[in-house]
Amino acid sequence: MTAFLDACRHTIGAQYVSIDAEQNAPYLIDARRRFTGTACAVVKPGSTEEVAAIVRLCNQFKVPVVPQGGNTGLVLGSVPDDSGTAIVLSLTRLNQIRTIDPVNNTMTVESGCILHNIQQAAEGADRLFPLSLGSEGSCTIGGNLSSNAGGTAVLRYGNARELCLGLEVVTPQGDIWHGLRGLRKDNTGYDLRDLYIGAEGTLGIITAAVIKLFPQPKATRTALLALRSADDALRLLTLAQKKCNAALTGFELMSGFCMTLVSRHFPQMRLSFKEAHAQYVLLELSDSESDEHANTLLENLICDALQQGIVQDAIIATSIAQSKALWTVREHIPLAQAAEGKNIKHDVSLPISVIGDFISETDRLVREAFPGVRIVTFGHLGDGNLHYNIAHPEHDTEDSFLMQQAAINRIVHDSVHSFDGSISAEHGIGALKREEILRYKSEIEMNLMRTIKHALDPLNIMNPGKLIQD
Amino acid sequence: MTAFLDACRHTIGAQYVSIDAEQNAPYLIDARRRFTGTACAVVKPGSTEEVAAIVRLCNQFKVPVVPQGGNTGLVLGSVPDDSGTAIVLSLTRLNQIRTIDPVNNTMTVESGCILHNIQQAAEGADRLFPLSLGSEGSCTIGGNLSSNAGGTAVLRYGNARELCLGLEVVTPQGDIWHGLRGLRKDNTGYDLRDLYIGAEGTLGIITAAVIKLFPQPKATRTALLALRSADDALRLLTLAQKKCNAALTGFELMSGFCMTLVSRHFPQMRLSFKEAHAQYVLLELSDSESDEHANTLLENLICDALQQGIVQDAIIATSIAQSKALWTVREHIPLAQAAEGKNIKHDVSLPISVIGDFISETDRLVREAFPGVRIVTFGHLGDGNLHYNIAHPEHDTEDSFLMQQAAINRIVHDSVHSFDGSISAEHGIGALKREEILRYKSEIEMNLMRTIKHALDPLNIMNPGKLIQD
Repeated sequence: MTAFLDACRHTIGAQYVSIDAEQNAPYLIDARRRFTGTACAVVKPGSTEEVAAIVRLCNQFKVPVVPQGGNTGLVLGSVPDDSGTAIVLSLTRLNQIRTIDPVNNTMTVESGCILHNIQQAAEGADRLFPLSLGSEGSCTIGGNLSSNAGGTAVLRYGNARELCLGLEVVTPQGDIWHGLRGLRKDNTGYDLRDLYIGAEGTLGIITAAVIKLFPQPKATRTALLALRSADDALRLLTLAQKKCNAALTGFELMSGFCMTLVSRHFPQMRLSFKEAHAQYVLLELSDSESDEHANTLLENLICDALQQGIVQDAIIATSIAQSKALWTVREHIPLAQAAEGKNIKHDVSLPISVIGDFISETDRLVREAFPGVRIVTFGHLGDGNLHYNIAHPEHDTEDSFLMQQAAINRIVHDSVHSFDGSISAEHGIGALKREEILRYKSEIEMNLMRTIKHALDPLNIMNPGKLIQD
Repeated sequence: MTAFLDACRHTIGAQYVSIDAEQNAPYLIDARRRFTGTACAVVKPGSTEEVAAIVRLCNQFKVPVVPQGGNTGLVLGSVPDDSGTAIVLSLTRLNQIRTIDPVNNTMTVESGCILHNIQQAAEGADRLFPLSLGSEGSCTIGGNLSSNAGGTAVLRYGNARELCLGLEVVTPQGDIWHGLRGLRKDNTGYDLRDLYIGAEGTLGIITAAVIKLFPQPKATRTALLALRSADDALRLLTLAQKKCNAALTGFELMSGFCMTLVSRHFPQMRLSFKEAHAQYVLLELSDSESDEHANTLLENLICDALQQGIVQDAIIATSIAQSKALWTVREHIPLAQAAEGKNIKHDVSLPISVIGDFISETDRLVREAFPGVRIVTFGHLGDGNLHYNIAHPEHDTEDSFLMQQAAINRIVHDSVHSFDGSISAEHGIGALKREEILRYKSEIEMNLMRTIKHALDPLNIMNPGKLIQD
């Protein structure tokens, strides 16, 4: 180990190879502070060539590598296990925006760039980079791509996968694949790009990417709509897609109980609806023409939805401040949940058409098995992505309830599976769900994945134990 | 071989295993009639299970498999070589549309479904399946996905890759991967779907797919605009994206010489521009609101473009018939080219921002080496995809010119490479370009591709010799 660390120091400079416990602590604990791993060092190369050189040393000394960006992941994908054999390879020094090409609508960024900085650089070039999620102030684009991040704009712009045209990757052997293409069409072989995207650092290390930019919308409009049921939210979605098409950029579902929690813990955010409703939809339109046109589009949509009895009540934001306030309510659901106590969380996706049935059936199954639980359902309905979270019954203690996590996961995930859904919509697998997917994926699919992993990383040094168990 | 063919007959019925030369001929010749291969049989399974059973027999008897849909490919990807050892496995009997889910905006189709039939089924459910290309009357969705087809709607809706959510695939071992997911978000492992898409049947056989549907536009508007240069076309593209955003669904560039050829060979299509122009753009808007709104959008755009001096003249289609007529001109370019004589064709893509420079620089290089050649440039400018074709000089004979193909390819493809472009934008590699890509892809990229191929198809029985040489 000493020889390995000396070689690392020699390669990138001693100040970038840390074995200091205090300094390394933030790199070893996961974002939700549930797990702390250990590492033989935290290594911070400063360029793609240095990343490659470190990985070649890891090959030589058989040292596992845990690539890490902002370390904001939710499935223990970017922290090492507790063996202490691995290094954490932090990409944070690769933080340059290399080029912006407004005519090609692309930007070439290094993987350690923070998402928010990329959004701002795009704005500076009068363009939009639409990827947007809660942790955007600290997550990095490399992590976003490695976990195929979702967020709130997927309905219109797709996941991180759809926002990337090209990659630069350091392979498990320490070679550099120069795939930084800025092309909309390129049919010259296997889709290596999409293989690395979403692979959670188990097949190589993304060091840079060409990402897609879009024209900035001229106007954005937000409304909060009250509905009777999730099925009505689906009817509203179909209507909004038909009438607004690509102008529909946000469609978030929030159950009445979500709103109750937000009002309870953040009373200043109480909504001005006269009565409580079963479901709410936060709807966003982005318009390329004008404020006026955006208003007309939104008003026509809501008018139709009210007339058809799909929507019961509506709050339309009339200023940017009001619009932000509505989004703030949405963003405070997880915080209100946390204030209420610990939750058992599920990040699932379903075919959009069965979401109403899934919610009522799963609610029934969970309540039957665990009477009194409080179910907190919200999510990106336009993408079929629900955060289906469960809080302890009022009569139970938080901790005794959390002991039931495995049994509750079983009910929820089995239900997801029976509706042809996914048990990880946008958060990934990491170390947290790698056993859970074995229950739902066929042996054939698992073997295909293992075959690819073994072929590309025969020494199993790239983020071992994440996504698939060797 | 007899034992193998008997086993095939026993498995799927003797009438679906043909060794009849006349009957097999259309399966053995490529779409452009440049090459005829041989096969030990043409085999037509009737279900996914039968496809799997045939592939297991191919494993047992070490018989190569050439999967084939509509056999409309342009790079010799779907015809066998001349060894006579392979079977052609035709997917044409797997032609059922299994389900349509209008709320989820998905359709599950078998791979032998003809693209045009899928478009019509979507229309029947008041939805749009936007993939559209010249051969849509006979190409199949399995072939579209295996070659990641492009076409005329990529600018707005993406390539075939972006239009697919899930796949069912028979692996080279004859297992069935049931990946028919209809989910917008699913982060549960490696992206197998995108690995099979664009793999040209070398990693497995796509037997069914879940494809994305979209709301049908309410109005479509087409205009033909005359411009001074390709650079002005780029300025127009940026303006149109800014003003119309996702409503911009078509942006085709055609050089003045393309128009000359169409007028010469199809005089009834002569355009009513007062004078000849250097470049033309066929522009299409699709609107989700109304005819009126579409008109306003288009008129405002053209008005701005005229005022800014980007556009010199414009023809706006005022009826569906006129709109079709403009598209017909575009579609007749390849026919006019063929009527003029044989061409050396290139299907290339570039970063959109360098297209003007690429055209002038490549024109210069080609004309310097081959004085008098006529260059026919047209393509999907919005995707950076050019069909850069070269016709013989008037003073030369067609055939002596065609002898120069290798030298001309070298100039064009080297130029593409120097501008960071791709030598196959939408047609793929097949057997035609498998040596050519070796010149432009790094050894690291080729090795990654070979590693994946060897791992997933160790016997090399899936479409051997296509895309990569073993």
